[in-house]
Amino acid sequence: MTEAWVTLATNDGYAQGALVLAHSLREARTTRKIHVMVTNQVSSGVRSLLSEVADAVSTVDVMDSNDAENLRLIGRPDLGVTFTKLHCWRLTQYTKAVFLDADTLVLQNADELFEREEISAVADIGWPDFFNSGVFVFKPSQETYKALLEFAVTNGSFDGGDQGLLNAFFSDWFSRASSFRLSFIYNMTSGLFYSYAAAYKKYGKTVKIVHFIGSQKPWHTGPGSSHQSEHLARWHSLHGSHVAKHTEVAGTQLVHVP
Amino acid sequence: MTEAWVTLATNDGYAQGALVLAHSLREARTTRKIHVMVTNQVSSGVRSLLSEVADAVSTVDVMDSNDAENLRLIGRPDLGVTFTKLHCWRLTQYTKAVFLDADTLVLQNADELFEREEISAVADIGWPDFFNSGVFVFKPSQETYKALLEFAVTNGSFDGGDQGLLNAFFSDWFSRASSFRLSFIYNMTSGLFYSYAAAYKKYGKTVKIVHFIGSQKPWHTGPGSSHQSEHLARWHSLHGSHVAKHTEVAGTQLVHVP
Ligand SMILES: O=c1ccn([C@@H]2O[C@H](COP(=O)(O)OP(=O)(O)O)[C@@H](O)[C@H]2O)c(=O)[nH]1
Ligand SMILES: O=c1ccn([C@@H]2O[C@H](COP(=O)(O)OP(=O)(O)O)[C@@H](O)[C@H]2O)c(=O)[nH]1
Ligand SMILES: [Mn+2]
Ligand SMILES: [Mn+2]
Repeated sequence: MTEAWVTLATNDGYAQGALVLAHSLREARTTRKIHVMVTNQVSSGVRSLLSEVADAVSTVDVMDSNDAENLRLIGRPDLGVTFTKLHCWRLTQYTKAVFLDADTLVLQNADELFEREEISAVADIGWPDFFNSGVFVFKPSQETYKALLEFAVTNGSFDGGDQGLLNAFFSDWFSRASSFRLSFIYNMTSGLFYSYAAAYKKYGKTVKIVHFIGSQKPWHTGPGSSHQSEHLARWHSLHGSHVAKHTEVAGTQLVHVP
Repeated sequence: MTEAWVTLATNDGYAQGALVLAHSLREARTTRKIHVMVTNQVSSGVRSLLSEVADAVSTVDVMDSNDAENLRLIGRPDLGVTFTKLHCWRLTQYTKAVFLDADTLVLQNADELFEREEISAVADIGWPDFFNSGVFVFKPSQETYKALLEFAVTNGSFDGGDQGLLNAFFSDWFSRASSFRLSFIYNMTSGLFYSYAAAYKKYGKTVKIVHFIGSQKPWHTGPGSSHQSEHLARWHSLHGSHVAKHTEVAGTQLVHVP
């Protein structure tokens, strides 16, 4: 019975996120494995940094056409990044796993998530009948992987991303028992407008995982961000103490977005 | 077995909202009663307009000190407006009711809400472990009213409003069965930032009740609004055809906010 946190980085920018995330999991003293999926666009220097903090780094390739489903995908290159995330279901060396977007950050130990079943997730603040696909509990399974690909090729994704696809596939999430519904403290997404300051003031200290949604990522330098500054500060603190000096050596840095 | 939609207006501004809301319920051909609670700050002209479209208009007064709970309230004037909403639980002439904020608008018949039980509501997009208190199904009951007042006087409200109070009182809402969780189509709140455009594009047509949260209300004229313009347009269309000419006669108008 091996359980793991799983994340994904398809380039060196998101890999900076994955590095900080992995270090945040270590600082929170998780007892579970950390698995990072990368594509071959991630430079080898950054990959070896990932290997130092993660238990496993595997390379995934969407368009490898190893099987019939992937062959069909070649006709849908638009779904590329979406499909890359689906590869997490192939990690059947784990009996259960929690996927974390590379733009999430663990503030406190959240190992209790492994008590939940597939598919457990947090309501999306944009349309709360759907779950946000930045944090979800799942059970790796080759069959589910194939069913997801089949579904995706047939139906596409209503938002062009993995969130639309996963919500359409697990469409009964909203009407399931409350155990499949995770508290907002496991995927606190914040926006500029209406973030319920009073609730944050009262419950902010209980937050365990934050998620830097949107086009502004913590590894982007440049004009202001829409995220809670204390969480951004925590990200940069981990980045500064564990990541920056190594990634500079590896020849990659924060991404400047003008 | 009489069931009713209930709303509240403590001044002529919110009363414009209540008027439009009541007309929107009529246009959606509801089979339930419409009940408007007003305070005596609402001018008599507007009150009589409300009587024309609603089945019942009742006057509520928070600080009437008719009973022990209200007496204790006199020490907490800050909770005034919050407590006014609680009066809906005293409408025991109805076996079940749905409270609608005066800044909501019904786009399509939503009478099926009366099949739900207390307390059914929609997740709040600011902190989705809590429900938004702009739309909720409840069962009028003198006992619940007293328990709510007692609770409020003892605990206050963490956000200073009815939403914090009701969420603290009905604190098991998040972990209840899914039938207590209403779809976002029954209380579509929209923000400027991250409103999940793809979900709105796909499911926007299914929305039945919209809610103009925030400080900008549809009856405010002046600088731009943060709300979906098609919904604002619908509000102004109902206001123009049913409300404006009468409220002008009654001596009240849209509120100019500089
Ligand atoms: O070019 C990309 C885009 C996305 N991702 C992965 O897919 C996740 C989802 O994308 P993102 O976080 O940018 O979406 P958001 O949460 O902002 O909607 C990321 O966290 C990464 O793990 C990636 O590796 N490369
Ligand atoms: O001065 C006030 C404030 C509020 N309300 C009533 O209380 C509800 C909740 O307040 P509001 O809608 O302004 O809060 P929001 O939904 O923006 O958080 C309103 O819709 C009205 O029904 C009122 O009558 N007078
Ligand atoms: Mn993300
Ligand atoms: Mn409101």
